[in-house]
Amino acid sequence: MQYAEPINRLIKSFAKLPGIGEKTATRLALFVLNTNREYAEEFASSLKAVKDSVGLCSRCMTFSDVDPCVICADAGRDKSQVCVVSDYKDMMAIEAFAGYRGAYHILHGNLAPLKGVGPDEIKLKELVERVASNGVNEVILATGFDAEGDATATYIAGIIKPYNVTITRIASGVPVGSFIEYMDPSTLGRAMEGRRTI
Amino acid sequence: MQYAEPINRLIKSFAKLPGIGEKTATRLALFVLNTNREYAEEFASSLKAVKDSVGLCSRCMTFSDVDPCVICADAGRDKSQVCVVSDYKDMMAIEAFAGYRGAYHILHGNLAPLKGVGPDEIKLKELVERVASNGVNEVILATGFDAEGDATATYIAGIIKPYNVTITRIASGVPVGSFIEYMDPSTLGRAMEGRRTI
Repeated sequence: MQYAEPINRLIKSFAKLPGIGEKTATRLALFVLNTNREYAEEFASSLKAVKDSVGLCSRCMTFSDVDPCVICADAGRDKSQVCVVSDYKDMMAIEAFAGYRGAYHILHGNLAPLKGVGPDEIKLKELVERVASNGVNEVILATGFDAEGDATATYIAGIIKPYNVTITRIASGVPVGSFIEYMDPSTLGRAMEGRRTI
Repeated sequence: MQYAEPINRLIKSFAKLPGIGEKTATRLALFVLNTNREYAEEFASSLKAVKDSVGLCSRCMTFSDVDPCVICADAGRDKSQVCVVSDYKDMMAIEAFAGYRGAYHILHGNLAPLKGVGPDEIKLKELVERVASNGVNEVILATGFDAEGDATATYIAGIIKPYNVTITRIASGVPVGSFIEYMDPSTLGRAMEGRRTI
């Protein structure tokens, strides 16, 4: 016996979420079936709202329900400093540390030629325009230290070099709270390379 | 920094699902944000559809988009045999075995006095009415063999005894494919008790 068609449709919607297989999707769909109508309606409406009222900030490309976003509109933040991240989640992680008072630029991806992601597939043109339009003194490259993030940082550095701005890359090294003995050779190599006089 | 309000709303909706914590909910909400609008709209519409067009079959109380449900409407199935299960998922599991050709009754829960679930909180009245209205020869109790499922079966057997129908309980014993040495004492006790001549 098959599930009724509307139940099947909901299972399929859940199963498209990352990390949710068909079994979990079925469990979640049956939960919705068993729970009250208000929840399903609020859920449906929040799914729509996120698409209707959240767009990209025209300056920094972050997800926002206002344009410019809260950070770009904040007079207390230094717009001459632009921290470039691959992803919205990376920006939120840096914001959680709370010590950064500059602006951001969200690329929405890393360059990944093997996956068909070239410079036009990420928000790189917008970054170059921002840098070209003056007002930017420093571009901080905060893409990840995996192969793609690193390659993206190197590529961007090459592209914006002509605009005569300071280009920095966040430090790579041993994370706080970690033991040297458990670190992989590449991390230790980077940590040695980046050593500073104290 | 906080997520924009519409994003927060969606995170909260996801976090109400069973087994989904705040971190996973955030990941899923950002997935929806990053994915295409069609998906979000189909998801929202399937959430509504499941509430709008799926109700309970007026005979067997199963979830269905038609009334009576496909099984109750199937002339090929023996309506005089009613298999009582706690949950829609249990019914689907028995249907998967495909050897049962009778009808069902879904209780939507087990009696659990400690959690405040009494006879009025599950679809018991509807079962008694069905049995009382004649046409039922056998009630097969297929609630689980955990404490609550077992107590529910015993309670139902007591309630429908006056109606002069055959009341059976599905067998408890060693599952197919299992080794005797790994079975717990209660299962082995049930298996011994339920032994049959061959």
